[in-house]
Amino acid sequence: MAPFRATITVRFGDVDRAGIVYYPRFLNYIHIALEEYFLEVVGIAYPDLIQEHRLAFPTVHLEMDFMRPLRYGDRVGVEVIPEKLGTTSATWRYRLFRPEESEPAAVGCQVTVCTNMDSFEKREIPDWLRAKLSEE
Amino acid sequence: MAPFRATITVRFGDVDRAGIVYYPRFLNYIHIALEEYFLEVVGIAYPDLIQEHRLAFPTVHLEMDFMRPLRYGDRVGVEVIPEKLGTTSATWRYRLFRPEESEPAAVGCQVTVCTNMDSFEKREIPDWLRAKLSEE
Amino acid sequence: MAPFRATITVRFGDVDRAGIVYYPRFLNYIHIALEEYFLEVVGIAYPDLIQEHRLAFPTVHLEMDFMRPLRYGDRVGVEVIPEKLGTTSATWRYRLFRPEESEPAAVGCQVTVCTNMDSFEKREIPDWLRAKLSEE
Amino acid sequence: MAPFRATITVRFGDVDRAGIVYYPRFLNYIHIALEEYFLEVVGIAYPDLIQEHRLAFPTVHLEMDFMRPLRYGDRVGVEVIPEKLGTTSATWRYRLFRPEESEPAAVGCQVTVCTNMDSFEKREIPDWLRAKLSEE
Repeated sequence: MAPFRATITVRFGDVDRAGIVYYPRFLNYIHIALEEYFLEVVGIAYPDLIQEHRLAFPTVHLEMDFMRPLRYGDRVGVEVIPEKLGTTSATWRYRLFRPEESEPAAVGCQVTVCTNMDSFEKREIPDWLRAKLSEE
Repeated sequence: MAPFRATITVRFGDVDRAGIVYYPRFLNYIHIALEEYFLEVVGIAYPDLIQEHRLAFPTVHLEMDFMRPLRYGDRVGVEVIPEKLGTTSATWRYRLFRPEESEPAAVGCQVTVCTNMDSFEKREIPDWLRAKLSEE
Repeated sequence: MAPFRATITVRFGDVDRAGIVYYPRFLNYIHIALEEYFLEVVGIAYPDLIQEHRLAFPTVHLEMDFMRPLRYGDRVGVEVIPEKLGTTSATWRYRLFRPEESEPAAVGCQVTVCTNMDSFEKREIPDWLRAKLSEE
Repeated sequence: MAPFRATITVRFGDVDRAGIVYYPRFLNYIHIALEEYFLEVVGIAYPDLIQEHRLAFPTVHLEMDFMRPLRYGDRVGVEVIPEKLGTTSATWRYRLFRPEESEPAAVGCQVTVCTNMDSFEKREIPDWLRAKLSEE
């Protein structure tokens, strides 16, 4: 099955003085794509996850390779690929594509940990959420 | 008395593709200068104000004139001038200077309102804080 | 005729520790809405304006009133209303709405000046662009 | 020899709704620390490197581990440790510390590539810069 793909437009405020996306903003893009993934695929809005269920998935490890620049105005396709669901952790892969290119502009891997938003302690991914995360 | 002046370095991530500071980031600069003003002049750290006293000063009105660009690497002087202390509101003026220039690069005016961080209701500026804010 | 309205989702990275949009990011929103306005209504992509026509519209004056907070996950409607087209300047009004609210969460006014991206000098708005800007 | 350490204050605009630094902003911090390293240790301002020498060091690979959160108001120490100087690449390690903690809050590794700012092609690190980068 084709991976989920969010589309994000590179905005004026995202590019640096070389006219390309400043690399910290790639991380904003993958976070937005993950928020879209939760909404569209997992079936729960990330704001609800945080505000109603008091759960969050902060990042404990991140790796990213940057192969080609993203430019102002690009409609970037960001693929979100769930890689591993542990007891408390979820690992995600990302591939970012410029329009009409088959080679990714960047690829990344991110390990997140299920965390109680009140105590800030890590916790097991609850069954109801695990079921949703495993479904697709 | 000379106004309080914070100094802020223009960072790579602040400039746009024209090599000048993208105007929304001027607002980050005045917020940082206000945080420095609280610490240095008012004598209370803004994080403590929020976290311990449960008070914040969100912005209800903002005006800004942009006269000349700020450039990458500039050490910008940001003057913070308390203009008016109302029952619930505090009004601030700002002047931003490039190094060794006597004409400001930008000037601004900001009205903030004392707000209870738990209820999000506006409230009177408490006497202890009013005393500190009136002192200088 | 109804004003042009862009829709912007409030992202995790946009909210502050009070869970509401940090006010400098309102300016990112109005810039994104203006970029959408150029694409959809004026009929020219802002990146092309900058990169091919070497024109930009930096901000020289900004005013904004903030009436109610925007929250994480809100789909914000941002109306862009062209107010005045001068020889070199263009003035824009903005109204930001939370979903299903008829009172704006914020309103703003921004004066921009047509600028040659190579010399950074202000210049007359060229006739072809003036025609497009006057059309709607 | 003790590694170079830049100090960065966590600002209001850096923290998320959990009151901790949103992880993409860790990357802003390491970029600021690298800019300080160039100024203080290498002896050339990064803006001059870009604007006068037309050189930049975009990131091609990044790894980061996040061990404990940074909080609003923290004065964060960011160590910059040059790890490897290749023909065209420079590899840097980073360790971020909260005040008075001996265990890092985060560690990172970043591979950057010397790039001609006009052609965007990678190029050999010029001898004069290699000498400076090797010195400390």
